[in-house]
Parts: sequence; structure tokens; C-alpha cells
Amino acid sequence: MNTFGFFLKVTTWGESHGKAVGCVIDHFPSGLEVDEDFIQREMERRRPGGKYASKRKEADRVEILSGVFEGLTTGTPISMLIWNTDVDSKAYENLKTVFRPGHADYTYWAKFGIRDWRGGGRASARETAARVAAGAMTKLLLRKYGIKVMGYAKEIAGVECRIGDPEEAFERAERSPLRMPDEKAEREAEKRLKDAMSEGDSVGGVVEVVVKNAPAGLGEPVFGKLDAYLAYAVMGIPAVKGVEIGAGFQAARKRGGENNDPLVIKNGKIAFLTNNAGGVLGGISNGEDIVLRAAIKPTPSISKTQRTVDYERMEEVEISVKGRHDPCIVPRAVPVVEAMVALVIADCMLMQGLIPRRLL
Amino acid sequence: MNTFGFFLKVTTWGESHGKAVGCVIDHFPSGLEVDEDFIQREMERRRPGGKYASKRKEADRVEILSGVFEGLTTGTPISMLIWNTDVDSKAYENLKTVFRPGHADYTYWAKFGIRDWRGGGRASARETAARVAAGAMTKLLLRKYGIKVMGYAKEIAGVECRIGDPEEAFERAERSPLRMPDEKAEREAEKRLKDAMSEGDSVGGVVEVVVKNAPAGLGEPVFGKLDAYLAYAVMGIPAVKGVEIGAGFQAARKRGGENNDPLVIKNGKIAFLTNNAGGVLGGISNGEDIVLRAAIKPTPSISKTQRTVDYERMEEVEISVKGRHDPCIVPRAVPVVEAMVALVIADCMLMQGLIPRRLL
Amino acid sequence: MNTFGFFLKVTTWGESHGKAVGCVIDHFPSGLEVDEDFIQREMERRRPGGKYASKRKEADRVEILSGVFEGLTTGTPISMLIWNTDVDSKAYENLKTVFRPGHADYTYWAKFGIRDWRGGGRASARETAARVAAGAMTKLLLRKYGIKVMGYAKEIAGVECRIGDPEEAFERAERSPLRMPDEKAEREAEKRLKDAMSEGDSVGGVVEVVVKNAPAGLGEPVFGKLDAYLAYAVMGIPAVKGVEIGAGFQAARKRGGENNDPLVIKNGKIAFLTNNAGGVLGGISNGEDIVLRAAIKPTPSISKTQRTVDYERMEEVEISVKGRHDPCIVPRAVPVVEAMVALVIADCMLMQGLIPRRLL
Amino acid sequence: MNTFGFFLKVTTWGESHGKAVGCVIDHFPSGLEVDEDFIQREMERRRPGGKYASKRKEADRVEILSGVFEGLTTGTPISMLIWNTDVDSKAYENLKTVFRPGHADYTYWAKFGIRDWRGGGRASARETAARVAAGAMTKLLLRKYGIKVMGYAKEIAGVECRIGDPEEAFERAERSPLRMPDEKAEREAEKRLKDAMSEGDSVGGVVEVVVKNAPAGLGEPVFGKLDAYLAYAVMGIPAVKGVEIGAGFQAARKRGGENNDPLVIKNGKIAFLTNNAGGVLGGISNGEDIVLRAAIKPTPSISKTQRTVDYERMEEVEISVKGRHDPCIVPRAVPVVEAMVALVIADCMLMQGLIPRRLL
Repeated sequence: MNTFGFFLKVTTWGESHGKAVGCVIDHFPSGLEVDEDFIQREMERRRPGGKYASKRKEADRVEILSGVFEGLTTGTPISMLIWNTDVDSKAYENLKTVFRPGHADYTYWAKFGIRDWRGGGRASARETAARVAAGAMTKLLLRKYGIKVMGYAKEIAGVECRIGDPEEAFERAERSPLRMPDEKAEREAEKRLKDAMSEGDSVGGVVEVVVKNAPAGLGEPVFGKLDAYLAYAVMGIPAVKGVEIGAGFQAARKRGGENNDPLVIKNGKIAFLTNNAGGVLGGISNGEDIVLRAAIKPTPSISKTQRTVDYERMEEVEISVKGRHDPCIVPRAVPVVEAMVALVIADCMLMQGLIPRRLL
Repeated sequence: MNTFGFFLKVTTWGESHGKAVGCVIDHFPSGLEVDEDFIQREMERRRPGGKYASKRKEADRVEILSGVFEGLTTGTPISMLIWNTDVDSKAYENLKTVFRPGHADYTYWAKFGIRDWRGGGRASARETAARVAAGAMTKLLLRKYGIKVMGYAKEIAGVECRIGDPEEAFERAERSPLRMPDEKAEREAEKRLKDAMSEGDSVGGVVEVVVKNAPAGLGEPVFGKLDAYLAYAVMGIPAVKGVEIGAGFQAARKRGGENNDPLVIKNGKIAFLTNNAGGVLGGISNGEDIVLRAAIKPTPSISKTQRTVDYERMEEVEISVKGRHDPCIVPRAVPVVEAMVALVIADCMLMQGLIPRRLL
Repeated sequence: MNTFGFFLKVTTWGESHGKAVGCVIDHFPSGLEVDEDFIQREMERRRPGGKYASKRKEADRVEILSGVFEGLTTGTPISMLIWNTDVDSKAYENLKTVFRPGHADYTYWAKFGIRDWRGGGRASARETAARVAAGAMTKLLLRKYGIKVMGYAKEIAGVECRIGDPEEAFERAERSPLRMPDEKAEREAEKRLKDAMSEGDSVGGVVEVVVKNAPAGLGEPVFGKLDAYLAYAVMGIPAVKGVEIGAGFQAARKRGGENNDPLVIKNGKIAFLTNNAGGVLGGISNGEDIVLRAAIKPTPSISKTQRTVDYERMEEVEISVKGRHDPCIVPRAVPVVEAMVALVIADCMLMQGLIPRRLL
Repeated sequence: MNTFGFFLKVTTWGESHGKAVGCVIDHFPSGLEVDEDFIQREMERRRPGGKYASKRKEADRVEILSGVFEGLTTGTPISMLIWNTDVDSKAYENLKTVFRPGHADYTYWAKFGIRDWRGGGRASARETAARVAAGAMTKLLLRKYGIKVMGYAKEIAGVECRIGDPEEAFERAERSPLRMPDEKAEREAEKRLKDAMSEGDSVGGVVEVVVKNAPAGLGEPVFGKLDAYLAYAVMGIPAVKGVEIGAGFQAARKRGGENNDPLVIKNGKIAFLTNNAGGVLGGISNGEDIVLRAAIKPTPSISKTQRTVDYERMEEVEISVKGRHDPCIVPRAVPVVEAMVALVIADCMLMQGLIPRRLL
């Protein structure tokens, strides 16, 4: 199940400390001009480094191995590869037989009877580099149709941003170290993050993604509903523990008369006065902004002492997780959530016939 | 996309005011004894009627048309059919050309260019009767493996229940009109619901489902992760606007040291001291209770006056939605969420080889 | 795996002597006018009865339970049901513990550990009634695009027909008892069939299907190639043991210079001078007639004495298979092969965007 | 649709003259010891070079990039890459705007509006190198269960081999230049091939593959039948125009009493006296050898003059196809057919639970 998508499909592969990670995109329309610089810039947004991120040094250069000819997609599978160049497994040597709390160490072992203990193996967030590459290619496609997928940190360490216009929020967040669009909130979040770091601990947050200009009609009820598909896409990202659309969990606390979005006529077309629905009704897009939020748990790798089990000796032990980790993964998660959302939207566009199989 | 499931597959069909609704279950193991009474009791839990539910009178008798021979499943597709017997489309006659706010009327029309306006057509929650039938069959299977899927209303109209042991909570909720396990909370919720009803309005809530005794190792990273699969399953239920696993959105506000569940040795086996993860790590079950919550929006059908659009005349109008509706759908949503969760768990068990293809 | 199709999907269910057989069609475009008489006429072409067919009397009335509203498809799943009305399981009573040679009795038992021994259960060709119903709906759709799917018996009992124009052949075959388009060949085949019948034996043959007016560009290399998809569709029909496209096995005996179809310009458009390719090159349609043939084995149910095994007593026995069987299934197989081919073509048209999701 | 398989899935990517070709295998069991030498030997069997094959020089070294840790599979996706090292596109320069007869040039152009004209692009048989790599990994798995997949040229240029025991035939064929197990037939076929070559022409043939020791119970009726799945797998190989199982097209000419395989008791177990069924009944394996044949058309690339169309000038032209081609592709097709068959068998074993998800 390393393939994502109903019609537009992405297969990812690779381990954190293996030779490389990569993806294969299938059913991608032919005739799209491939802007490799754009793809690289997207990679840059997720790349480790920076004040609050892992110190692993990866160039994250995407090598396109197939499916593109003379700068255009050909409709055949697009294989993209990213070499792992700064692998250092030393910090994991003494964790070979120990399950790190909050990580997939135990569950991979329970499922497969074997695990690549170096850097989290397949369960590492390194895998999401391949998702961002696929997402970047997909954003290029959506851009042709005027569709933008924009994310930012809505909340970090319990501090919530005030958001106005999502495009402005996105632009502002891109210039900020924590990818938060609200400076005041950011200052407070940064303080809390530093506090946590000083104690060898980590913090989490909430990513919000908004899709502008997606047409009405996207989504395939009753089991390929747009919101279900988005939830599937986003909950599958490492560290995500919750997903909500529009008013989300707050909708559960409202009355119908308050939560229903009235329909109106705007510029001769049907529109909605409010957007509690987050752009999705009955699992189909309604033409309004698609809005979702993902809850990101605090990074489980912390140097603070934790209780766990050594399974070879089958005894309880205490560990402190070293290595190069992100004390807060939220800023780097933003482009990953965007990538998954972009894949969903493009797939729905293709299935609905709103993007053709061939652009030439 | 009316088929759900990776290996164990359920296809549902049918409209609210059509002749019938039904489902076909595929890849169901052979040799299971079919307890039709149990199936009928599950249908009963979702059936309309009761103080706070739609007054539509449906016997919801499940007719098994195939896949069962001499009381045992045969491994061939199980076709189940439920006739619609109490159809009354009169209340919808004057809504033919009007989009009800909060409903899928507009989006189906935008997607398909045509819609069955009677009772919400395919978008009606009537479709979930077929899901409950499939879920009941699946619960029979899980029962053989000691796995229980239990749900209740965690919250209604903003009033939250205190939950202790989930099995007790389930039993208690089953005896309560709002399916809430906490009497005090229920009394308050009931008051708020009656208030809303008196104003022709509706309320929402949160359903919690707990899976007991699911083994470690379920879920298929990286795109068929257990939590992603559950989110997909549950977000696709009508009215659901958010899904969270374990600590969910609260995890985003915790520190790593607080959110990580320490591993310990219990009765000679690996276990976890706490369950913030909700039983899922890295997309794979860890042997603890699987815990999820779904946000249910307030029923959009309200008699309160609302603004909307008549698309034939292309003008704004005001409507009051009549018909037989649930002022609070949460209690009836509980068995639907359970059904979807049961399907996911059984599918993962089959894929992992923990349930065989044949029981004989 | 009772669902067929990549995007346009058909799920069938039902056993020979169960209550009913049926199908659910998913992703069928909205807005198609449903001509129920046409569907019934297609059912008629496969229906038992007639000189050389089973004497089982089934009206084979198709009941459409969902997905059609006011005579038009709505884009939601189309559920079709056909009741089994003339079930007589007596002839199978004494075969309960005996595996009929040439049938799936043994293999279903080996796979599932249980089998519905009445009339072949799920393995009965009765299941194909549901395929013909789905195929008929699909032919209605293809008809709108000028595409015709036409079949006939190319060969029966080793006697081969001379075929000229496929449309003429189709028309002629429809008026003949063995569905053979060549009268002389038919007379000889009939003689051989009667010979076989007089000895309690059966015969087989070859069905040819031609698709007219399919555009170039259908098929999804490299694993959803049009020819691979067709082979998959047709080999899965009961009794089919071989499938070939265009020159098929004869191509293997030709030289490249002879087998290659030269490209020419005809009426200002690219066309082919010959059609050894059978309309498919590199797994994609080339705009010429799509031509395939299916080898149909002789009906395994024969009254002639055969050796087999009684698995309860675990000893070798001799049996003579009674019941109502077709001494030659080839004529009735023709509409089944057509149905499967129609599904493939329509699916490829949809995936290529040549048929839209909505016709309104 | 560049992913093959129901549960065990292989995705291939790459063009003939691109940087590389490769594959990703998903749902492969964990804990298998990877014998890289065996994989390389399988690559060798398909590699160009030799008297009757393309002169392209490719080492075809398989690089395993993921999914294997310390010599064992981990259950995560196995990415395999083969660099294209001897690319020479010169011979194709003057064919840029010309469609080679018998090739996919026209159809890719018709489907995608663009084509990589270098060496056939994605439609080149070079793509099958990735299939053989995936097949080799799969054969390693099957070997653990005693299952062997063995192929040879049954027929070349119209000369048919006499085959006795398939294992002997396989061994003999492996030592012969045309991979034919019958020396006398080979001498005659070689003569005919040389004749064709001297005229700048090519020949075709028939590949037969036999699977030994596959257990009864494989295959998923009614749309994932073993024979349908095999036909799908094999018809999708470049140049294949027909597939038959067991007696195949000859079954169509037999009587039921002759074609039915009697069941007997052999060594206390149920077995069949003959094997006209080719090991498959009702779409499920019956425990006998699985036998299939694929018709391979003559190589379309011939230096002999052919008529075709230049689509830029939109006029008819004559061409002679240069480059490095196989005058007879049949010997090199053998390991490709084996690879596809191995994938099908392993997938069915996994789905039936006869191979577990984890071997440790």
C-alpha cells in the first residue's frame, strides 16, 4: 500500500538511511511543461536545516528518470529520485533493540518481524521528500487551472494564529521561521518552543491548508468523497493525529441554523454566504475554498529520558533519543500536507474530466 | 467509488426514495456461521423512530440474496438488500428546484447535472443502512477473534460525557435515548436538544468508537496506514466533519515527553503505559485499544427559515425544510461509525493474514 | 474479486440456485436515457431455451433498483437484479459429494472448504446473466458514440465460418440457431452437434467479436493495455480457454513484413491497409476494427459416463451428469463475450476522456 | 496503469533511451533472503546480445535501492533500478515524424499527443527488463514453496517442438540459442530464421510456460480468476497477440467427454488423469501443472522496405527500419512471460494466505 491515489497514482519508496527515496507518478497528463526549478523550490520548503529543524544536510536534488521528454510530460510514469547523501546511523546503533516511544519501531517489528532501525527506516519522515516531489509536479498541473494549494502553521505549541485572507497568510508564513502567518502568535510560540528545547522536549501544532479556485463537482460519493479522500491523504502523513474540514470539530457544537451555509447568487452564479462546510458538501466540492486542518503531534524523538523496552533482553530500560531531530516538525509538515492535498485535488479533477489526459 | 475497502470490499447502492438500498460484500471469508438475528439487532440500532429521530417507519429487514449456503458464508459475494417501504416524497415536491443549505443538493447537481431530489437521493443517510448491514456481518467475523467495536455519543450539543471503561460506557449508552454513557451529561444535552427543537433547529455532537483486542500489526504503511484508513472510512459518513485518533487535536498541544506513550512489560508482553496514540503508531496498531472520534455536524434539515437559491428561476428564496428528520443524528450515527471501523479492522486482519480466507 | 473494471466498475453477485443474481455498475455517466426494452432484448439473446440450449425456464426480467431517475442515469450506482424463478436442484442431490469433471466443483471446495452444490453455485454460467445486463446498459452508452460491439460463432465443433463484413455476419448470425453467420458451415456444425448429443456428449467452438468505430487512443500501457484488458475480461468468462487479438496465434507463424499493417492516408486521415493487429498496437487502439476471438470449451456437463471422485467416501466413482444443460454453449456465449468487451471499451473511453462523466 | 497486481503489486517505469528503467514491488513479504546473484542470472536470460538478438550492450545490473536490509526483505517497497548505458538514438533521428508499422508509434501519438521517438520510448521491450527483475525477486519467494515457473519456445517460425517432461524441456532450452527444447525443431527453425534475416525480415513464435507444484485453490472468481489474471499478465507483454491455457484453442474442437479431465485418487489425494484444463478449473488452480502459451508476433522492426505515413508532412512514405533489433524476440520473451506468470502465482498465493506476509 505504498501507492496513493484513485486514478492519478503516486508510489513512494525508500528508507531514511537507505540509498535514496523516490516516487513514481502514474496517469499524469501528457504535455505539461516541467518547471524543475519550481520542483526544487518546493523541496527546499521541506528540506532539513534552519533554526528549529534537523541538522541533517540533504541537498534534496530531484532527479527525473522517466516520463519527461524535451521538457514535457509524456503521459508515461514519471520516476523521481532523491539520493540520501548525509546518512549517519551512529546515533541509532545503541537503539537497535530498543523501541523509541512515540515511534513506529515497535509496530514495524510487530508487523514485519524485522525492521531497518537506521533513522526510523521506512517510517521516517524522510519518506515525505518523495511526496513533496510528486506534489510539486502536481501543483504545476493545478496552476494551469488556476488552482492554488496554500498551507501554513495555524497553531504551534498551543498558540493559535489569527488568519485573515489565506493568500496573504500563506505569503507571510513563507517568510517566517515557524511558518506562522501571525507575528504575535509566532513570537509566543517561539518562546514556548525554546522552553521545550531547553528541556530536551518538543512541541506540536496544527497545519491549515486552503485550496483556492477548485471548481464545484470534485469528489466521488459515497466512498471516494472529497473530504474522505482528503482525510485519508492527510492522516497518512507521519505525526498527524486528526483531520478536520471547514468548521470541523466546532461544527459539532453548533446548531444547524448556524452551521448551514446559506446559498446566494453572486455575480450571476451560485455561491455560499459563509464557509462552515470548508468547501465540501455531501463529499463533493461546492466551489468555495476547500479548508482543512491537520493536528501534528510533538516530535517523538526527544533527548529527555523516557521509559521503554529492550526487546532482545526483554526488559524495561530508560533512553534518551539522540540524533538530528526537529524540535517542532510543524513548519516542515506544511509543504507535505499541501502535497497530499494537491494530489487529491488533481486526481478529482482528472476523474471528473476537468483536467484532460492530454494537454496537447 | 461506491466500493469501500482494500481487500475486503463492500459496494453499496440505493437511494433514499428508490425501491431499495443494499450492499455486496466481497472477499468475505468462507465458513462463518451467519447469525441473522444479530444482523437485525444491529439494523435496529440505526433504525429511524424514537423520540429524537426521524418518524420514517422502516422495518429494515435485511434479505440475504447470495453468498450464504446452509447458514454458512461460502466465500462468494454476499448480497444484502433492504427494501424501502415507507417512502413519502411529498415534502420534497416543492424543493425540486431549490438547494437545501447544508445538503448535497447543489453539489450533486453540479457534479452530475441531474439529481434525484426525493429525500436526498443517494446523499441521504438512508444509504448507511447498507453500511450497517455489512458492518454487522463483519462484526460477526471479528467476534470470532475476540475483537469488539463499541461506540457511543461522547458529546452532544456541546455537552461532553465523562468516560471510564469503554465497555461499560458502551453498555450504558445502549440503554439511553441519546446513546450517551454519562447520565448527567445526557440530561443537559437533552435539554439543549429540546431547546433547539423548539426553535425548529438541530444539534450535532461527537461519536467515539473503541476497538478492544485488536492485535498489533494492523495497517499498511505508508498509504494504507490504519489511522489513514480509519479516517477515510469515517470521514466518508454523512455529516462527519472531523476525525481524530487517540489524543487527536489535543496531541498538537502537548509536549513530546507528555504525549509519547512509554513502553512497558505487562504479563511478559510489551504494552504501553498510556494510550495517547489511540492504539496506532506509524500507521500500525500497537495492541492497545484503538480509539477514534468523529465530529458530527448538526442535521442540516431544519424547519427554521433559511436563505437559499432556486436554480430554475435563478433567484434567492427562503425555505423551511419539512419532512421527517432527526433533530440530532448523533445517536443513530454511532452504529454507522462502528460499522465502518469494523470493516477497516477486518480488512486489515485479512491483509495481515490474522483472519484466514477460509474458516473451515 | 467480483468487481470488474478499472474506472467503470461492475460488481456481480449470485448463485445459480440462489434467490437471484445481480450486478451493481459504478461510475456510469449520468444523463443517459435508459432503454429498458433494449436491455431486455439483450437478456433474451443469452436466455436459456431453444433447440440446443438448457431447458431451464427463466424470464430473466431485469429489475433496476437504483441509479436511474425519471428514465435517466444519475451517476450513482445502478443496481440490477434478476430473480431465479425456475430453480430445480433435484438433479444435483446425488452429486453433493462428487466432483463433476470439467467443472469448478473440486476447485471451489479446495479454495473455500465449502461449496453450494446446487447447479454449480457461483461457478454456474447463470452468473453471466448479470454481466449481460451490465453489458446492455453499457452498449446503450457506446451506441451514443457510434460504437458497436458485434459477435457471432466463428467456429463450432471444428467447423469454421467464412466471414465477410462483420456487420452482415452479425445480422445473419442473429437469425440462426447456432449464431453462425455462414449457413453452409452451420449445417455441418449442426450435424456434428447432433452426433455429439446422440452420444450424450457436447461440443465447443470459437466466438469472434468485432468492435466498430472505436477511436484510436484507447488502452493504458503498460499494464492496462487494451489487449491485456480484453484478454482479462474474456478469459474470465466461464468455459473460455484462449483469447487472441487480430491475427492472434497465426501472427506467430508470419514474418514481420507480412504481419505488419502498412499505414496509409485514407480520406485525409491515417489508416491501416490491413488489420493483422486487430485494432491494437502497443496496447492502444489504432482506430481500426478491434477483433478478438475466444475459444470456448465443450460443455462439461454430459450424460456420458465419466470417472471422478466422491470426496466424502474418498473413492473413485462413475457419474453421468443429468440436469438441464447446453450441449453447445457457444451461441449463448456470444452476448456474454460482447458484454465483457463493451465494458472494456466503455471503461477505456471514460479513462481517456472520450466519454464524459456527465452527458447533460 | 503502470502498476500490475491485485495485492502483490509491481510498478514499472522508464523509457528505452531514457536514463534508466526500474520497478517498485509492493506488499512483498518480509524476511526473504535476497539472492542477488540469482536476480542477475535472470536478467542475463533476457539481456540483449547473442547471435539472434539486438546488439545493444547493456550490463543490466540491478541496483536495489530500498526494501532490503542486511540481506533480507523488510516488507517495505523494493525499488530496483537498471541504468540504460548503451543508448544510441541516431537510428531514430530520421523516424521522428514517421510511424513504424507494427509499432506503437502511431498509437502513443494518438493517445498522448506527444511521443518519445527514441528507441520506441516507453513502448520498447526494454521496459520488460524491470519486469524480469521483479519476476526474479518473486521466483526467489516461490522457490521457498517449491514452486517453479519454467518456460521455453514451443514454436518458432512455424516449427513446433515436441515437448515431454517440462522440467527437462526447460533445462534443454536453457542451453540452446533459440531456447527451443527440441533440437530437430530448432535446426529447422534456425534455417527459417536465417532465411528471413537474409531478406531483412523477422519471425515470431509461441512461448510455453509451465508452473510446477502450485497448490489447488489459487485464483479469485469471478473477475480475478487465475486464467483471466494470467491472460491479463501475459497479453500485456509487448508482441503477444494470443494467450491460451491448457488445451486452449484445441479445446474448442474437442468433445466434452474428451476434454474433461477425469478425477482420480493418486497417493491418497485427489488428482486428475489428464490436464486439458492446464491446471485451472472455474478460474481456480486444481493442483496440476499450470500450462499456458503466448503467441509472439514477428519483430516489427525490419530493414525490409515498408509503406507508412510521415505525419508532419502528412504523406505516405517508404521506410526501412535500422537500429539494433532482434530478428526473433521469442527466446528473450521466455523469461518475460515467466516473470509475469511468477507475479500472478505469488499474488494468488498471498491472497489465499498460502504465503504469509512475514516469513520471520
